[in-house]
Amino acid sequence: MPQLAIGVDLGGTNARAAVVNRDSGEIVAAHKEPHRERSLQAVIETVAYAVRQSAAAAAIPPGALGHVGVGVAGQVLGKTGVVLNAPNLGWRNVPLGEELERALQARVRIANDLSAAAWGERRFGAARGVDDAALVFVGSGVGSGLILGGRLHEGHHGVAGELGHVKVRPMRPGTPVRRCGCGELSCLEAYASGVNIAARVREELERGAATAVRDLMQGDLERVNASIVDRAHAQGDPYALALWEEVAELLGTAIAALVTLLNPARIILGGGVILACPELYRLSREVFAAKVSRSAAVGLSVERAFLGDDAGVIGAALLE
Amino acid sequence: MPQLAIGVDLGGTNARAAVVNRDSGEIVAAHKEPHRERSLQAVIETVAYAVRQSAAAAAIPPGALGHVGVGVAGQVLGKTGVVLNAPNLGWRNVPLGEELERALQARVRIANDLSAAAWGERRFGAARGVDDAALVFVGSGVGSGLILGGRLHEGHHGVAGELGHVKVRPMRPGTPVRRCGCGELSCLEAYASGVNIAARVREELERGAATAVRDLMQGDLERVNASIVDRAHAQGDPYALALWEEVAELLGTAIAALVTLLNPARIILGGGVILACPELYRLSREVFAAKVSRSAAVGLSVERAFLGDDAGVIGAALLE
Repeated sequence: MPQLAIGVDLGGTNARAAVVNRDSGEIVAAHKEPHRERSLQAVIETVAYAVRQSAAAAAIPPGALGHVGVGVAGQVLGKTGVVLNAPNLGWRNVPLGEELERALQARVRIANDLSAAAWGERRFGAARGVDDAALVFVGSGVGSGLILGGRLHEGHHGVAGELGHVKVRPMRPGTPVRRCGCGELSCLEAYASGVNIAARVREELERGAATAVRDLMQGDLERVNASIVDRAHAQGDPYALALWEEVAELLGTAIAALVTLLNPARIILGGGVILACPELYRLSREVFAAKVSRSAAVGLSVERAFLGDDAGVIGAALLE
Repeated sequence: MPQLAIGVDLGGTNARAAVVNRDSGEIVAAHKEPHRERSLQAVIETVAYAVRQSAAAAAIPPGALGHVGVGVAGQVLGKTGVVLNAPNLGWRNVPLGEELERALQARVRIANDLSAAAWGERRFGAARGVDDAALVFVGSGVGSGLILGGRLHEGHHGVAGELGHVKVRPMRPGTPVRRCGCGELSCLEAYASGVNIAARVREELERGAATAVRDLMQGDLERVNASIVDRAHAQGDPYALALWEEVAELLGTAIAALVTLLNPARIILGGGVILACPELYRLSREVFAAKVSRSAAVGLSVERAFLGDDAGVIGAALLE
C-alpha cells in the first residue's frame, strides 16, 4: 500500500484537492471545486467538498483523512493556521486552520501557496536533492518560497519569502509610488505582477499613451496583459522598452538581493510573467547578472518550475 | 571537567584565539596576536601561535586541540575552508582551512566572521533561544549573519548573509555609483560602512564641501569618521543632513528587505556606525519602519549585540 497524503491549493477562484503518493509525488486523485462565494464558511465548504471528493476517488474512508496540508495565496501565520491577509479572497485575520480542522475532523497544516509549491519542487521537482533553493514566482502576483538547509523556511510566524512585498522605490514626499494589493506602498508586486502591469498599462492607455500595445490589444482593454507588452517590446515599441526597462531593473535587482543574502544553489522560476515574456526575462537576467554578488552566484543554476500547477498540492500534502 | 572548544577571530590586523566553555559560553583563556604580515604563511603562524598560547593557558595539551573554529572577515567557501575574498587581508582564493589543519594538526572549520558572531549570539547572547534571527553589522564593513530554523544559515557554499554586497543603486550608463572593496559596483557597503563613509567625506571635503564636519575634525582629515558626521547632523549641518538621509534610506531599505524575505523574530545590531551614531540610527529606523512588510514585522524585536567582540570567538568555537 502506498503512503497517501492530501494537499489543497486554495486560490481566489477555486480549491483544488489532491491525494498524493508520499513516496513518488504522484497525484493519485484530484478534485477542483470553484468557490460559490468568498466568505470563510463558503470557502471551508468548498475545500471540504474537494477534499472528500478526491479522498473518495482514492478510496480513503471519510474518517481516515489523517493530515491535510493547505497552500493559500496569502500571508499565513505559520502553525496557528490564521490567514493574515489573502487579497484574492478578500480575507484579513481569518482562522482558516481551526475552522477547517473542525469541518474535516483532521489535522490541518496551512502554509503560503509558494512555500507549499517550493516544498513540492524540492521533494519531486526542479529542486530535488538541492538543500538551498528559492522558488521565485512572477505571475498574477509576485513571491517566493524558500528551501534553506534542506527545510522549508517559513520564518518566525510563517510569512518568510515575501519577495513581492520588498519595497523597491524611495519613499520621499513628492516621489510617486504605486500601492500594492496588500495595502502598502512601493512593493515589488505593485510594479511587476501581471495584474499590476495590466492595470498600469490600461491606465496609461486611457490617458493617451502612444504604444504598439494599442494595436495588439485590438481595441479591447481587457486583452492588455504582460504578454502583449512583451510582444510590443520585441517590435521595438518605445513605450514597452521604457516599461520593461523599469520592471526588469526592479525584478533583477530584487532577485539578485535574494541570492546575495541567501546563497541558494538553485533558483526555480514560475509564473507567466517571467516564463511567457521572453523579452522581460532576458532583460531581467541582464540586470540580475550585473547586480548579484559574484561569490553568491558561483555554481547557481536557474531552472523552470517542473511541477507547474501541481507543485502546490504536492508540496502541501507533504508539509510537515 | 567542562567541555572546552577553541575559536579564532581572524581579522585584518590580528588573530584572537579563545578557549570557550561549551556549556556556559564563558571564555576560559584567550590570546590576541598581531599579524607580522598578511601572506597566508605568516597569518597561519600567527593563528597557530594564538591558538597554542590560549590552549596552554587553559592547560589543553598540544595534541588535544580537537576542533578549531575560525571566523574570517571575508567570503568563505563553506566547508572547503577556502577564503574567496578577504579585502582586509588582501586575500583571494586562499586555502586557509587546509593549511591551518596541517599547521595545527586539528580539525579546522572556517566561517564568515559575522556568521560566527551570529552563532555566538544565538548560543549565549542576544539571540539565545530565538530560532530565526539576523545579526546585522554596520561598522568598518557591512554584513549579516543568519540564524534560520535554529541553525546557522551559510548557504550553498558559505557566502550567505552578504547584506553589504546587496546592490542598492540603479546601474544605468551615466548614473554614478560607488565601487566597493569587494571590487563590485553599488554595494550597500560602499555607501554605508564606516570606512567608505569616511573616505567619501574626505573626498568631498577635499573638493571643497561646506560642512560643519570641517570644524569638528579640527583640520585633521584623519579624524573624519561616521561619528563626526553624526555630530554635524545633530547640529543641523545641511551636508550631514543630506548624507545621512541617503545612507539611512539605503540601510533602512536593505534591512527591511532582509526582514520581509526572512521573517526573523529578532534583529541584533552590531558595529560602531549603527550603534554609535544615534542620528543615523534614528533615521534608519524610520526608513525601516516605512519599508518593512507589516506582517513580517509583527513581533519583531531589535536588540544590541550582547557579546560584543567576544561573539566571534565564542561562535567560532561552537560551530558544528
